[in-house]
Amino acid sequence: MTKRIACIVGGGVIGGGWAARFLLNGWDVRVFDPDPEAERKIGEVLANARRSLPGLSDVPLPEEGTMTFHADLAEAVRDAAWIQESVPERLDIKLKVYGQIQATCSQNAVIGSSTSGFKPSELQEGTARPGQIIVTHPFNPVYLLPLVELVATPASNAEFVDKAAEILTGIGMYPLRVRKEIDAHIADRFLEAVWREALWLVKDGIATTEEIDNAIRYGFGIRWAQMGLFETYRVAGGEAGMKHFMEQFGPCLSWPWTKLMDVPEYTDELVDLIAGQSDEQSGAYTIRELEQARDNNLVSMMRALKSQDWGAGALLNAHDKGLKPQSGLAGGVDAIGDLSQPILTLARAVPLDWTDYNGHMTESRYLDAFAQSTDRFMEIIGCDSDYIASGGSYFTAETHIRHIDEALAGDRISVRTQMLLGQGKKLHLFHRMYKGDTLIATGEHFLLHVSLETRKPCPPSGDIEAAMARIAQAQAGLDYPEGAGAAIRKPA
Amino acid sequence: MTKRIACIVGGGVIGGGWAARFLLNGWDVRVFDPDPEAERKIGEVLANARRSLPGLSDVPLPEEGTMTFHADLAEAVRDAAWIQESVPERLDIKLKVYGQIQATCSQNAVIGSSTSGFKPSELQEGTARPGQIIVTHPFNPVYLLPLVELVATPASNAEFVDKAAEILTGIGMYPLRVRKEIDAHIADRFLEAVWREALWLVKDGIATTEEIDNAIRYGFGIRWAQMGLFETYRVAGGEAGMKHFMEQFGPCLSWPWTKLMDVPEYTDELVDLIAGQSDEQSGAYTIRELEQARDNNLVSMMRALKSQDWGAGALLNAHDKGLKPQSGLAGGVDAIGDLSQPILTLARAVPLDWTDYNGHMTESRYLDAFAQSTDRFMEIIGCDSDYIASGGSYFTAETHIRHIDEALAGDRISVRTQMLLGQGKKLHLFHRMYKGDTLIATGEHFLLHVSLETRKPCPPSGDIEAAMARIAQAQAGLDYPEGAGAAIRKPA
Repeated sequence: MTKRIACIVGGGVIGGGWAARFLLNGWDVRVFDPDPEAERKIGEVLANARRSLPGLSDVPLPEEGTMTFHADLAEAVRDAAWIQESVPERLDIKLKVYGQIQATCSQNAVIGSSTSGFKPSELQEGTARPGQIIVTHPFNPVYLLPLVELVATPASNAEFVDKAAEILTGIGMYPLRVRKEIDAHIADRFLEAVWREALWLVKDGIATTEEIDNAIRYGFGIRWAQMGLFETYRVAGGEAGMKHFMEQFGPCLSWPWTKLMDVPEYTDELVDLIAGQSDEQSGAYTIRELEQARDNNLVSMMRALKSQDWGAGALLNAHDKGLKPQSGLAGGVDAIGDLSQPILTLARAVPLDWTDYNGHMTESRYLDAFAQSTDRFMEIIGCDSDYIASGGSYFTAETHIRHIDEALAGDRISVRTQMLLGQGKKLHLFHRMYKGDTLIATGEHFLLHVSLETRKPCPPSGDIEAAMARIAQAQAGLDYPEGAGAAIRKPA
Repeated sequence: MTKRIACIVGGGVIGGGWAARFLLNGWDVRVFDPDPEAERKIGEVLANARRSLPGLSDVPLPEEGTMTFHADLAEAVRDAAWIQESVPERLDIKLKVYGQIQATCSQNAVIGSSTSGFKPSELQEGTARPGQIIVTHPFNPVYLLPLVELVATPASNAEFVDKAAEILTGIGMYPLRVRKEIDAHIADRFLEAVWREALWLVKDGIATTEEIDNAIRYGFGIRWAQMGLFETYRVAGGEAGMKHFMEQFGPCLSWPWTKLMDVPEYTDELVDLIAGQSDEQSGAYTIRELEQARDNNLVSMMRALKSQDWGAGALLNAHDKGLKPQSGLAGGVDAIGDLSQPILTLARAVPLDWTDYNGHMTESRYLDAFAQSTDRFMEIIGCDSDYIASGGSYFTAETHIRHIDEALAGDRISVRTQMLLGQGKKLHLFHRMYKGDTLIATGEHFLLHVSLETRKPCPPSGDIEAAMARIAQAQAGLDYPEGAGAAIRKPA
């Protein structure tokens, strides 16, 4: 694939997040931002993204693109397939920038605006090619959160919008196509409603900023992270269903609970009250520390959802499946290029949730990685999900791990697998884990084929036996690995 | 500790959740609910709680209490220290129930109401002992989510409210003490504001229920699960701080974004629209399946936060620390009862996030458990967090695991540890993992004491050497374990 070019107009936290997301997904990125600090600021966002995003995937991301900084907007947008505008929220500034962009950019390029405050029809008005400009409103941190609100108008043709959605999906995002343009799109309407209510609660001394945060994150916040609003209520409604829930909850609609009919006055006193409480709540941490804590939390929770194949985790799994795998990482025995050498069975970055507080990969995650390699090897010989569903599988009986060197969060690791024995119900594997070319661990595993019904050993299918025989023959020339067949010595 | 008694008045999803939370935290539970289906319904909630709550802890919960069902309310509340009312949201019904409860309950008992719709002053009015009645409003699923809004009035004395908060903390909850009573307390004000806005969006055809759920769970929902609203915005504000953020965002306050100034009319058409979209979105799952998916997700995410010691995870860690440990699970070598036998170094339930789709504990989690046992053993010999902070620790060089039997989500497992060698920089451990009395796995580990600065082997402190010598002498009479020192055999 030829490298594709994204042009980021306006750096800062949002522009930097876009830059990182495109770059780490293999795009070349050009940045235009007159701020002399732009390179430093984007560099900081990129450093955060590099430690968190690659490990969110269970497969390697494409090679990083190249990032360049440009003083000339006309030059920066030339040949770009995507132009993302994240300049300040003033319509006059945005319209002026679109004029400059459209003077030299490709007619096929998508011009996406990060605006939360303007509707696409407002952004398009009076521009040279209105149909080229759409809203693509992301959420911070842009390099981790998949949501992006995609809002178009009748001026944008459907094919063009489809292409834009496809590009966003390609960089791991979830383009939510808003059906009709509306002030604040969708998510910010909720944020705005909650924000105003929160200001009232603080102003009236009902709760502090910290108590409000706790009311959210110890309760409905965790629920919403996985099911959102309606599915959560569907469950709450029980067997009687959503209609029943609505009947119970519907009447509340007319209760005058919310203060949102009214808006608290924006005064210096209110600002000082909120800022003071926020200092008390979070002032012990720097913003950098909070950002890293947030990213650690988000990656860990999103990977937790990934293991459940649910919500944002299901999205990530689907994205992983769509990435082009290296040889060895997909298909059966016929798909392996050179069967005579140890087979590549794992290639990934060490994710943040695999590491200890020092950033070192923890002991049990070595076995996690080796177990993934074993699963992949099973798939190669034909013991895939269909086969397992039919009632047979391999169970590990014994494992021997040697730790030779260390790995840190974000390190790219790979595992190559030699089959020491694959005959009848027995499977004996030797995995070598590398960081670059450095051997960092070995995992020796003895597995037995079992019936999932009786959970007792039994022979595998003939196809599996045949695939193992092919690998045994091809790998017959390999030396027996140093360290295999070794025991932890009995002390003298 | 003598068993304490909680009386649950009104079953259903909320009452059942309370019953499960008290019961699994060691309280005896009496249930009063005239519904002939109450026992079945509470049994179903309890089954969900048993598969999810015990494994949320990294230490064993107290022994379960006893649950009984009562037809006579007067008898049920006698001697109860906590009485939780979760009857329908009608003030006349609630007041009648309080009259019956107060006729026989202890004057010191807390009467907590699960109400979301009434203020405590409304519940207290005209009752025999108003100060005894407070609002304790939980969130579904009550057995997993820690948040409970505790609302009192001037009629409740401070000591009494403190005691109530302490009891709630004791069963793993976070009592959010609302400073002034207010309609809908705190969290439901947010839920209500979002709910109304969501109804507008569906009614006006801007988004479907599924799109709204995705707008939440792929974006701000995951952010809120860990930092809530204000801390999230503090980070967004960057180095310039919360005041700067307010200045940027403050003006939005006067924008007429939200439709909440107005309330959508509650019509059959609106109900059918929402219920129909919800069926399309989630109808492929039964409510039971959705409940289990929700609990799997919540447990996995809360445990992810636990590993980061943040938000609800920090709360869980603090709760674990407060539980009374079994011998072997706290203190140094002097705290171990009988040093001559393998030492108990782990006792816990298998959590949901340690299991595969079949509910079986996955391979790498055996090593996770053994690594926890190794950490605990290190602590026993004096290699605790202070020692590690001073620059020394043990690194695992080699591991040998044998799988003998299986464990399922929720199973109580324990590990007992025999020291095969503890001398100089060498530490050789043999862990046996049991489910009840059944040996299900062994883990043999060879560790080296290292300097965390050079990351090279070096001798440990004299105190650690001395502690190891005491254990070596005490365990000298134990047989060398069957399976220790064994290798995976080289195939003939």
